[in-house]
Amino acid sequence: MFITFEGPEGSGKSSQSALLADWLRQLGQDVLLTREPGGTAIGDRVRAILLDPACTEMEDEAEVLLYSAARAQHVGQVIRPHLARGGVVLCDRYADSTLAYQGYGRGLDLATLGVITAFATGGLRPDLVVFLDIDVEAGLRRKQLHADVDASQWNRFEQETLAYHQRVRAGYLQMAAAEPGRWLLVDASQPAEAVQVALRAQVGAALGMFFGSDVHAPSA
Amino acid sequence: MFITFEGPEGSGKSSQSALLADWLRQLGQDVLLTREPGGTAIGDRVRAILLDPACTEMEDEAEVLLYSAARAQHVGQVIRPHLARGGVVLCDRYADSTLAYQGYGRGLDLATLGVITAFATGGLRPDLVVFLDIDVEAGLRRKQLHADVDASQWNRFEQETLAYHQRVRAGYLQMAAAEPGRWLLVDASQPAEAVQVALRAQVGAALGMFFGSDVHAPSA
Repeated sequence: MFITFEGPEGSGKSSQSALLADWLRQLGQDVLLTREPGGTAIGDRVRAILLDPACTEMEDEAEVLLYSAARAQHVGQVIRPHLARGGVVLCDRYADSTLAYQGYGRGLDLATLGVITAFATGGLRPDLVVFLDIDVEAGLRRKQLHADVDASQWNRFEQETLAYHQRVRAGYLQMAAAEPGRWLLVDASQPAEAVQVALRAQVGAALGMFFGSDVHAPSA
Repeated sequence: MFITFEGPEGSGKSSQSALLADWLRQLGQDVLLTREPGGTAIGDRVRAILLDPACTEMEDEAEVLLYSAARAQHVGQVIRPHLARGGVVLCDRYADSTLAYQGYGRGLDLATLGVITAFATGGLRPDLVVFLDIDVEAGLRRKQLHADVDASQWNRFEQETLAYHQRVRAGYLQMAAAEPGRWLLVDASQPAEAVQVALRAQVGAALGMFFGSDVHAPSA
């Protein structure tokens, strides 16, 4: 089972996916928790280019292709082998981030981005996309509180306008509406415990495991 | 005017493009001689990943996307601005290398590669593709003689089979046959001087300049 986490900055993807991974492991699942770009030697080097302040002159197309290159390596070297062993993969961001940020956000052609992401992933699509939805300004404020976690990402992110982030969110909502069976839309402005409870119920159901009142909120 | 040089290893692309650049400069043209991948800070970093022996586990798709990322940056930051200033660009390898090596050579889908290269280049195609054709085994022997020039490339190249290089050459010949007006097919097994004379005649004609017997063979 392949589950991806999508959502604007500050929506809590990292912490929610980590909590879900812990829970699935307690249930005996072989869980790989990973994130884009990275997880491979090649991906780490691509990530360094994407975050390098010396590379500010990056063309939009080059950015898409670098993310896609890291994704291709990540899928082939890490994600597919884990799925083939019967494990569960949780991935913080995946192909839908490219469609949301570079497609809806920057206005690059969605059909072309679809061809490129299908090529990069060999057609591997998540069984479930968890979309942690939050108002853009609320997400920005939340991110700013944790800016010390990864200042380099925050700086890159800060350069974008509010209108850009609103286009990204609208794009996510449009993709979620188009495939309601594959997307799980979660209100990320709720307390983290409530978000995690919703996730566990849905993922547990998807795994064919039906749990009752013994699903506890995490201690966060 | 945008001229690219294609051909198997050992076909003499670098030396022929350098001689043609010298000649065009003597004729008063503003010539940019460049090569893929590279020519930009981002491209150089991508090139380092592509040549890094630690990255031998590279997926075919990741390789295509990395070359394409470097190409997108090269086109946007270097090639288009020079063409916009009215200059001539000579580029050692371009999009057709992806089709020949990864498409015909490795068997990746040509239509998908076409979409990716069109995205990377923003649709910028060369006015003239110079294809320096040489028998695969003859090219390999010639390359081996100059292995000290760029040993890292030679090593990467050596890993491929003769059959692979023959598929690459057949792919080039097929692309040249499909667009005879855009491809200049040159027999690269000729002496270098003869190759250069053929190039100058064709490029001179394309530039609208008609020279007579005062076109001299280069001293090589």
